[in-house]
Amino acid sequence: MLELTEITQPVQEDLIVVEASLKSLDEVKSQDISELLNYSLSGGGKRIRPIIALLSAKFHEYDLERMIPLVTAVELMHLATLVHDDTIDDSPVRWGRPTVNSIWGVEQAVLLGDYLFAQAGRLVTATDNVRVIRMLSETLMVISSGEIIQARNAFNLDQSRQDYFRRVTSKTASLFTLASESGAVLSRAPERSIRDLRDYGHNIGVAFQVVDDILDFIGTEQEMGKPVASDLTQGTLTLPAMLLLEDYPEDNPVRLAFAEKDGREHIARTIEMICNSTIIDRCFDVAADYRERACRCLDRFSDGATRQSLLDLTEFVVERRR
Amino acid sequence: MLELTEITQPVQEDLIVVEASLKSLDEVKSQDISELLNYSLSGGGKRIRPIIALLSAKFHEYDLERMIPLVTAVELMHLATLVHDDTIDDSPVRWGRPTVNSIWGVEQAVLLGDYLFAQAGRLVTATDNVRVIRMLSETLMVISSGEIIQARNAFNLDQSRQDYFRRVTSKTASLFTLASESGAVLSRAPERSIRDLRDYGHNIGVAFQVVDDILDFIGTEQEMGKPVASDLTQGTLTLPAMLLLEDYPEDNPVRLAFAEKDGREHIARTIEMICNSTIIDRCFDVAADYRERACRCLDRFSDGATRQSLLDLTEFVVERRR
Repeated sequence: MLELTEITQPVQEDLIVVEASLKSLDEVKSQDISELLNYSLSGGGKRIRPIIALLSAKFHEYDLERMIPLVTAVELMHLATLVHDDTIDDSPVRWGRPTVNSIWGVEQAVLLGDYLFAQAGRLVTATDNVRVIRMLSETLMVISSGEIIQARNAFNLDQSRQDYFRRVTSKTASLFTLASESGAVLSRAPERSIRDLRDYGHNIGVAFQVVDDILDFIGTEQEMGKPVASDLTQGTLTLPAMLLLEDYPEDNPVRLAFAEKDGREHIARTIEMICNSTIIDRCFDVAADYRERACRCLDRFSDGATRQSLLDLTEFVVERRR
Repeated sequence: MLELTEITQPVQEDLIVVEASLKSLDEVKSQDISELLNYSLSGGGKRIRPIIALLSAKFHEYDLERMIPLVTAVELMHLATLVHDDTIDDSPVRWGRPTVNSIWGVEQAVLLGDYLFAQAGRLVTATDNVRVIRMLSETLMVISSGEIIQARNAFNLDQSRQDYFRRVTSKTASLFTLASESGAVLSRAPERSIRDLRDYGHNIGVAFQVVDDILDFIGTEQEMGKPVASDLTQGTLTLPAMLLLEDYPEDNPVRLAFAEKDGREHIARTIEMICNSTIIDRCFDVAADYRERACRCLDRFSDGATRQSLLDLTEFVVERRR
């Protein structure tokens, strides 16, 4: 498989500037704030959304000075949602290290997330582009409302695949869409290209989340940096568990796990049944389908390093193992 | 004392439009989201920040079509911070009714707050004024970082009056400043007027919070719609308790209440000592001082109904009993 550093060659230098931009945000007067920011900005994310935003802007007028605040804002938005997610899920570990909530408590974690949202909102105004600025807030509306619906459907078995893809679209793909679309808009791409890149973002985003949901079952805790089958524990029905329910509608450990809410043995049995079936392959087929759709969105772009990187990125997203 | 409806005469009709604008936000496709929005938007706040924003714009080019989204955004920002505050404080009651967190739980309350922040961010882009848009995010940075510092200093007795006023400035006055300053900017006021109105917002905001902190001790639960001495219970040192500590540095119930963290009898004793001393009067003197400063910020504005309303509003803020 291609390494991420090879794929991102066309924007490699700019990613270093993005990293520095993120790093500089912890230089604030208050030691209290600085400590929290430093920790949350150095978690070791793959920066996939910044990569997509930068590459999406490369086809047209690429203005690095306006791209940096945009891309930093998109990544901050992502980090903020993770901080709040971990807090409301009471997650102890992310990226192989303790979460903000587990170290500093719910109160500071909620407030840190708010601060990161606000910082993202401030940074994006440096683009001076109201359309892009609005997209950032609209994305947070989509994410938070999607998560409210997810919360209200926790431990609910009566969910369709359509519900699943709707949830994936709002909680994950929306940020990928923001990245590609805002990059395109800021580069003054024609509307048709903006639409294509937005659709690219959506499809690679769905593929990304489907793979995430697979890895939640087949990955080890060490690889993933978080507990195995964490979704099931939270009562979130993802594609692999949905397929298992479809295959065995009656006697099914998912049903028992949700009924008991802390059915560890049922969760272990669910993992075992999913891993010893065709479910994982079928889920990868779904991811591959979205990957294919993402690639097709690039049909109208001229061949070259940027397009190739975006194509390769779809491979990386589907083939990755963490 | 003047009624709020008399004070707000110059913007009375526009406030009805603001109310309709807030009300319309719950018209969303999802029943899950609509229910939460409807509840949180109908809490019965006094809408003081919208009033200040509208009045601040009245001196210059008053464009209602751009003011409505701004003012709605300012109020949403306020409501969002309350939802998160109540959640992290685990408060059961606000405005005499159960809080969002007590009805729907921490998870949905955190996400609802995020949604309201995002909706505020989206709405403010309708002003098409990047300076005003940026101010909204900067205000949330100030509020959340101020609250992080407050959280880290909970149950800490070693705080100065300067610490207190810094906290009041960031957690409360910042939103009043946002209201007055953004109203002024959007009305294309000259920079000097913007500065004066911003300072007005700051000073009336500090006065407001000082009075809030007094009412937390002298109000009844029924009047206030929330438990008495809730700050002390949370480990937050406010002006009345600070003065009591200054008056009785040694044997002091605040000291004991903070040491035990759940010292109900010490809190009852603190309330009693504060109410049977000159502390309340001295705190009101502090509020009156900030009120006076707020009024002086209006010296350079032409006499008329708008200016009078802003002056009267300072009286309302200091004289109110809930």
